[in-house]
Amino acid sequence: MKIVQTKAAPNPRRVRIFLAEKGIEVPFEEVDLMQGAQKTPEFTALNPFQRVPVLVLEDGTAIAETMAICRYFEALQPEPALFGKGPLAVATVEMWSRRMDLGLLLSVAQAFRHLHPAMAKLEVPQVAAWGEANKPRALEILKIMDEQLAGRRFLAGEHYSVADITGLVAVDFMKPARIERPPALENLARWYAEVASRPSAKA
Amino acid sequence: MKIVQTKAAPNPRRVRIFLAEKGIEVPFEEVDLMQGAQKTPEFTALNPFQRVPVLVLEDGTAIAETMAICRYFEALQPEPALFGKGPLAVATVEMWSRRMDLGLLLSVAQAFRHLHPAMAKLEVPQVAAWGEANKPRALEILKIMDEQLAGRRFLAGEHYSVADITGLVAVDFMKPARIERPPALENLARWYAEVASRPSAKA
Repeated sequence: MKIVQTKAAPNPRRVRIFLAEKGIEVPFEEVDLMQGAQKTPEFTALNPFQRVPVLVLEDGTAIAETMAICRYFEALQPEPALFGKGPLAVATVEMWSRRMDLGLLLSVAQAFRHLHPAMAKLEVPQVAAWGEANKPRALEILKIMDEQLAGRRFLAGEHYSVADITGLVAVDFMKPARIERPPALENLARWYAEVASRPSAKA
Repeated sequence: MKIVQTKAAPNPRRVRIFLAEKGIEVPFEEVDLMQGAQKTPEFTALNPFQRVPVLVLEDGTAIAETMAICRYFEALQPEPALFGKGPLAVATVEMWSRRMDLGLLLSVAQAFRHLHPAMAKLEVPQVAAWGEANKPRALEILKIMDEQLAGRRFLAGEHYSVADITGLVAVDFMKPARIERPPALENLARWYAEVASRPSAKA
């Protein structure tokens, strides 16, 4: 078993944090997206969508998509539960996971991909107006997170979950995307300090 | 219990198909997105992200996000399993669910939202170049689906799953988004004919 990744990209980091929280060790193999490694026939056979990370099982079966890889390991080793336990917790974690994923991380990634000169070869066409439109979206979501975090420790409640992992990775990705975290958002700052100080954040 | 929706929107349709496949009946309450119903204080209290659908439980707890609502009902009533059973099936369904969701449905929705005159008030700013950039993305994904469907009945294997639901809704949403399904994609056409003819597709 191995995970094919590009270490600097945000999605592989989500998987590494997830595995660190589970205490699971899997060997990683590095490919260089900037050099077009995802476009080779070998990589395309693993993932026709040409994205990292990809989990490759012993028999060669390939599982792409960050959340699919995380769910594979959650099903193999349910504790600690990072996708919630019981219908209401499962739904609440998924709700916040998607708000972080399709909301915050996607907005930050769009700003990065459509505005950063280093992405000109990967994001074709770069649409600067769309990159700019995503910055206020990201800031709006941070404000909602701050309001919600007034009443609880983590995004989906009192337990750390995969929603916090995506939230942390998205907030850190704001730096290369050149979006500043408003310092007035104190609940967000408290949450960030806690999730960023867990040993898994360094994975 | 009730689900707040806008019937014509693609995400509530995903929930209706999911519930029909499960044989679960829940009352729906209609709100009019085009009239700004999602921006009222009442609706914003249910979902600060101002989107439909929202599941409201007896005690007032609100669960937003299509996939979170579906997972709530999957956890309450596991059969028929629409998110897969066992680690490999769970991961495979999630992989295809996300490819349909963040890949196909998102591309089609971006084309619709950024190009259709009716969306000018909801999508601010409309970035036409971004809408256009999403059309070839959608077509690329259809091509990959066609290749993959050569070897199997449904997107995630031999069992119908939530990935097929999102795939069907995304393909149907291509009509208002003005993206034509290439008739040469015969495996895709066979799959579409099967999933569109299930009674749930009319839900």
